[in-house]
Amino acid sequence: MSFRHDISATDGAARTGVIHTPHGDIRTPAFMPVGTAATVKAMLPQSVRETGADILLGNTYHLMLRPGAERVARLGGLHKFMDWQRPILTDSGGFQVMSLSSLRKITEEGVRFQSHIDGHEEFLSPERAMEIQRLLGSDIQMVLDECPALPASDEALEKSLALSMRWAKRSRIAFGEQQGRACFGIVQGGTVARLRQRSAQELQEIGFDGYAIGGLAVGEGQTAMFETLDATLPHLPQDKPRYLMGVGKPDDIVGAVLRGIDMFDCVLPTRSGRNAQAFTWDGTLNLKNARHAEDAGPLDPNCLCPCCRQFSRAYLHHTVKAGEIIAAMLLTWHNLQFYQDLMAGLRDAIAQGGLDSFAARFRARYGVEKSTDSAIFSE
Amino acid sequence: MSFRHDISATDGAARTGVIHTPHGDIRTPAFMPVGTAATVKAMLPQSVRETGADILLGNTYHLMLRPGAERVARLGGLHKFMDWQRPILTDSGGFQVMSLSSLRKITEEGVRFQSHIDGHEEFLSPERAMEIQRLLGSDIQMVLDECPALPASDEALEKSLALSMRWAKRSRIAFGEQQGRACFGIVQGGTVARLRQRSAQELQEIGFDGYAIGGLAVGEGQTAMFETLDATLPHLPQDKPRYLMGVGKPDDIVGAVLRGIDMFDCVLPTRSGRNAQAFTWDGTLNLKNARHAEDAGPLDPNCLCPCCRQFSRAYLHHTVKAGEIIAAMLLTWHNLQFYQDLMAGLRDAIAQGGLDSFAARFRARYGVEKSTDSAIFSE
Repeated sequence: MSFRHDISATDGAARTGVIHTPHGDIRTPAFMPVGTAATVKAMLPQSVRETGADILLGNTYHLMLRPGAERVARLGGLHKFMDWQRPILTDSGGFQVMSLSSLRKITEEGVRFQSHIDGHEEFLSPERAMEIQRLLGSDIQMVLDECPALPASDEALEKSLALSMRWAKRSRIAFGEQQGRACFGIVQGGTVARLRQRSAQELQEIGFDGYAIGGLAVGEGQTAMFETLDATLPHLPQDKPRYLMGVGKPDDIVGAVLRGIDMFDCVLPTRSGRNAQAFTWDGTLNLKNARHAEDAGPLDPNCLCPCCRQFSRAYLHHTVKAGEIIAAMLLTWHNLQFYQDLMAGLRDAIAQGGLDSFAARFRARYGVEKSTDSAIFSE
Repeated sequence: MSFRHDISATDGAARTGVIHTPHGDIRTPAFMPVGTAATVKAMLPQSVRETGADILLGNTYHLMLRPGAERVARLGGLHKFMDWQRPILTDSGGFQVMSLSSLRKITEEGVRFQSHIDGHEEFLSPERAMEIQRLLGSDIQMVLDECPALPASDEALEKSLALSMRWAKRSRIAFGEQQGRACFGIVQGGTVARLRQRSAQELQEIGFDGYAIGGLAVGEGQTAMFETLDATLPHLPQDKPRYLMGVGKPDDIVGAVLRGIDMFDCVLPTRSGRNAQAFTWDGTLNLKNARHAEDAGPLDPNCLCPCCRQFSRAYLHHTVKAGEIIAAMLLTWHNLQFYQDLMAGLRDAIAQGGLDSFAARFRARYGVEKSTDSAIFSE
């Protein structure tokens, strides 16, 4: 069975459809919960599936350090190891090397760095990044790229981009052919339209199964992010999945879907769930707030997750205050449910040709938040 | 519907049967998972039920401090608050006041102490302890007792016991009559047989729905604990439930069931689950141990819990080492399953008249551990 993206409906620039993989279908636009270290934090895998997630993201950087890609392979691969039998996308580790490790040294060959866990030295090249993802058994494997910190000069961005494109070519060659699995390129270029367009062009010359937009949601703000998407997406092929990495807040996702993005990942729902923050259609709530202490109502009366069906805001407030693990479990579950419900709403709206109206209603009720820094939350 | 203990079979001193309550039946001998602060730590209530638990224990001390008994009552009671619709037993707070609070001052009237959470002053009398348990809506309410630290002189024990017996009488009066709910007395007296027998006698003169053995498993060792049970249990009525508080390790439970105990609670399975320790029929395992790192086999091949059905020892080792919440979730689930499977095995063995043989097989395989300090683990 081959990897294939069937687009069943469009609405403006937005698209909905299904990505077919040997591990099952992915309904797009899709949100991928982050399963950093072979677990979506505070969730059992069947619970993640119950929220409607079709695909998880795994982190090459974390898994190469612990438990190690060769070990996961000996244990039967990542799907079996973490008991998630559906599709898995793995990043290449590039972003985490930049944000988590120390003593990084980038050369043409790759990046040498020290583990943030125990300080031991590791080396990641495009070839090793792809080998790790193959060992993990990932369905969608990402090229190794360099992620420049923003703001950066155009010259620095251009130099970094050139390296990322050379690494993309080596990654694609290293990926080779893997039946049913996909290799995605990553468009870089900061917020400079001509660099993004050049990157999109060069990646297509190499040829990938899907195209990601990297290096956004790192502090540039939502306006700049959307402008970059507007400048980039018309230069990507219509028939391949488009993945906006590390994004984001619900209103980021709505805006990006309107512009034609098919896939997202972000730690926000899971990390927020461990920090007492809940997403609702009326915006975010902090369950630490004393106003919830005697609120017998559910977090969200329309939500069907166990957190909302079985417990009151007062209970969530109490367990948050008491530092109980169940608070993280319940709020994570709810937040993932909210994100999946949002994606289902977006898919339905596109299928019915009513995305603009859906987006307007969403924004009117949810509100629009100011900053777009979701990708800086690395789990 | 009234509170009633039907004993269906005996085997030597051991008994099996059912305690009927308006919230459902409790199969005895029963192990009660500890739900300290309105949650069995790291477990959803439906998961606790899936392990076979018929009843939970809630802590008056913890709940009176946070979220407060009056608040729980306004929110509809503890069953609704924590979404556990089956029986709940609440302790009286006496043990936690002694072990957790500071600046305790015990008078005839009650005990004044400072909260371990925020230092605010609280007062617990027999009447207030029973009022709190009534507000929580507890099915089985325990009298307030004084728990002397062991070792203590006979004179100190006798003085403490006399106070506990006066408090027991006041507690029983304060409990009054509550349809379908039960009030249990607590036998004290350290490891002194004549004090235990006096306590058992005095409690029966007051008259309770069940009798607990308190003040054991506080460091006296398994031999002294079993000797105390041997000296005490013949002096308790045959037709009422007998509850050994805060016990214990699996082999403590087996020995106590052989002696005629019907109910147990202990934090050991849940606390151990958060500390990488797993119970199996072949003894305990520490999942931190590197020998599990590449073990593709399940924790216990015969266990039907999700931890054992879905994950390998290697996965548990990895998630323990990575500090992932799922490790606590899975190991807690497994440990509670092990405890419930042990209780089911004991009940079946009694029903079939084969308890001695069951106990011998259990000990031969599990081994016998040295100390019996389980009650000192207070959650």
